[in-house]
Amino acid sequence: MPERIYNFSPGPSTLPYSVLEQAARDIVNYRDRGIGLIELSHRSKEFMAVAEETEALVRENMNVPDNYKILFLQGGASSQFYMIPMNFLAGGGKKATYINTGTWSKKAIREARLFGAIDVAYSSEDTTFNRVPSTGEYTVDPASEYLYFVSNNTIYGTQFKSFPETDTLLVCDMSSDILSRRVDVSRFGLIFAGAQKNMGPAGVTIVIIRDDLLDRGDDSIPTMLRYKTHADKGSMFNTPPCFAIYCVGEVMKWLKNNGGVAAMERINNEKASLVYDAIDATDFYRGHAEVGSRSMMNISFNLPTAELEAKFIAEAAAIGLDGLKGHRSIGGCRASIYNAFPRDGVVRLVEFMAEFAAKNS
Amino acid sequence: MPERIYNFSPGPSTLPYSVLEQAARDIVNYRDRGIGLIELSHRSKEFMAVAEETEALVRENMNVPDNYKILFLQGGASSQFYMIPMNFLAGGGKKATYINTGTWSKKAIREARLFGAIDVAYSSEDTTFNRVPSTGEYTVDPASEYLYFVSNNTIYGTQFKSFPETDTLLVCDMSSDILSRRVDVSRFGLIFAGAQKNMGPAGVTIVIIRDDLLDRGDDSIPTMLRYKTHADKGSMFNTPPCFAIYCVGEVMKWLKNNGGVAAMERINNEKASLVYDAIDATDFYRGHAEVGSRSMMNISFNLPTAELEAKFIAEAAAIGLDGLKGHRSIGGCRASIYNAFPRDGVVRLVEFMAEFAAKNS
Repeated sequence: MPERIYNFSPGPSTLPYSVLEQAARDIVNYRDRGIGLIELSHRSKEFMAVAEETEALVRENMNVPDNYKILFLQGGASSQFYMIPMNFLAGGGKKATYINTGTWSKKAIREARLFGAIDVAYSSEDTTFNRVPSTGEYTVDPASEYLYFVSNNTIYGTQFKSFPETDTLLVCDMSSDILSRRVDVSRFGLIFAGAQKNMGPAGVTIVIIRDDLLDRGDDSIPTMLRYKTHADKGSMFNTPPCFAIYCVGEVMKWLKNNGGVAAMERINNEKASLVYDAIDATDFYRGHAEVGSRSMMNISFNLPTAELEAKFIAEAAAIGLDGLKGHRSIGGCRASIYNAFPRDGVVRLVEFMAEFAAKNS
Repeated sequence: MPERIYNFSPGPSTLPYSVLEQAARDIVNYRDRGIGLIELSHRSKEFMAVAEETEALVRENMNVPDNYKILFLQGGASSQFYMIPMNFLAGGGKKATYINTGTWSKKAIREARLFGAIDVAYSSEDTTFNRVPSTGEYTVDPASEYLYFVSNNTIYGTQFKSFPETDTLLVCDMSSDILSRRVDVSRFGLIFAGAQKNMGPAGVTIVIIRDDLLDRGDDSIPTMLRYKTHADKGSMFNTPPCFAIYCVGEVMKWLKNNGGVAAMERINNEKASLVYDAIDATDFYRGHAEVGSRSMMNISFNLPTAELEAKFIAEAAAIGLDGLKGHRSIGGCRASIYNAFPRDGVVRLVEFMAEFAAKNS
């Protein structure tokens, strides 16, 4: 293994090194077949087997019930922002409720308004999205077709510790915490996630959708934008993003071999606690999120001044702690520590945080 | 280099081996930075440089004028089937003209009808799409916003030798022959192509669009489905399919280093002629396409019986000539010989064709 930097990027992000090595071998010669993985026809028996195995592993790792389809789509999570209302509000005169906890929910709300009446039941925008609500803090109009929320807010470092309690259909953007903790999928109508945080490289989006919702769209919707189209063809209606799907499968094997989602949850809690403890240990660092809303995946924090933040990011990068710059919308620092981010890197970070605070206080 | 099979698949398809080797190195450790290519943030200076270089190389290799944008989108060519009419017919009451030369134009026509009045000016469906028309064979209603055609029909093995002569805006699906021959881009309003034939792996679609057309959409269109959104952000409005873009860049370097599009055109003509000569040499093989419509990329042909075709495909595969089965919609055999398909493989195929015909006539 070459010397690796610790990559705190929010996505695309660190992947298990064993997955990178396997991908490198398969790209030039897939299982000694004399053909590269990315040269395989998507209709070949080799690639069909990859796609089927990947789906089965996502299902197993997330414990997805049989009455849910798992789709591998393109266009990023951003494409789900319009596909969901386009399908679920089809026919017109319908409404949905959204919880606004950050940039990505806000973008989803904007797209949804093209298709129906959208209630924003809660927003933490006034406090720079530093918290997520608990169920008692908002009401959902029973006429809503669905309640939409973002389980983990990558930019602000907030995360729902428990999911909304409601009779309304739950739709969730889990892009930045899918597979990081145990989730009861049966509580949801639709879950989606871009792969490039906990599942693989950029280029594929996973949609987990309950069977009975596949028919929600109507004939006015382009074929490619109906969930049913992709569900009916096992995500092979058109050429899928083969390499990204393959990588998701390899990450799923790695996750399963490392104890599954329950083990990830335990390790993620431990890794995040190390950083939060470092933040709370001094007045030098201030966490962006309210304590009760803290994310185990993305930890956004500030130093006393913007100058110190720039110095912190630069000195960290110089010793191989890379990608700690916060999102341009809130500045500051951010450590993204997804499933594949090694515990050793977290230990190095908190050591550096202590040293830096001591030197610069 | 491991022993390689000759991969005649129609896409995903053969890529230059040097590109596979480079990708394998970069995936585990990008330019010795201690981070894998597919772990790089799309906003990192490393990946931004990859994206910019890829765009510049596509522009150089295709001689794309400055008043055209080159976009790297997701969703496959199939997503362009609706994005084009959604943007170009926005506002309602508009019409467009389509030339129907195969499965993919037919699918595009179906999607376009969701957005406006569609004239089908020509169709070769009655003769199983065995030909493409010349300009004199159809008329284009001057009220059309654009004339849509597919330059090369992958399934049927037909190809426009010259492009429609018309004052109407030309929109072209070049998925299966982009970069295989010299094209005057300035004659087109929009050109699109899925990468997985002549440009790279599946997972990215190239759209080349004239600047003045970016504003055609209106505010009723979801943000992600407007060309302007992606043009304004250099295809970085959301996380792009980084690995596929990187591979396109590597293929562009290979193409440039091997003489560019003019050299590809010469070699492709030579490779295709070898196969067509083998077909024409006996009555045993019958080409699907009319002689004047023959494709240099995909050669669809039949043997005297379906049984002989199955035997041909199986015996060819046994000696490393893989993927010769025709598309399920017309059966028979098909040899897809894109830019990266080696001349040696074509020579092996025509030798095998002669032997097989001699033995089985």
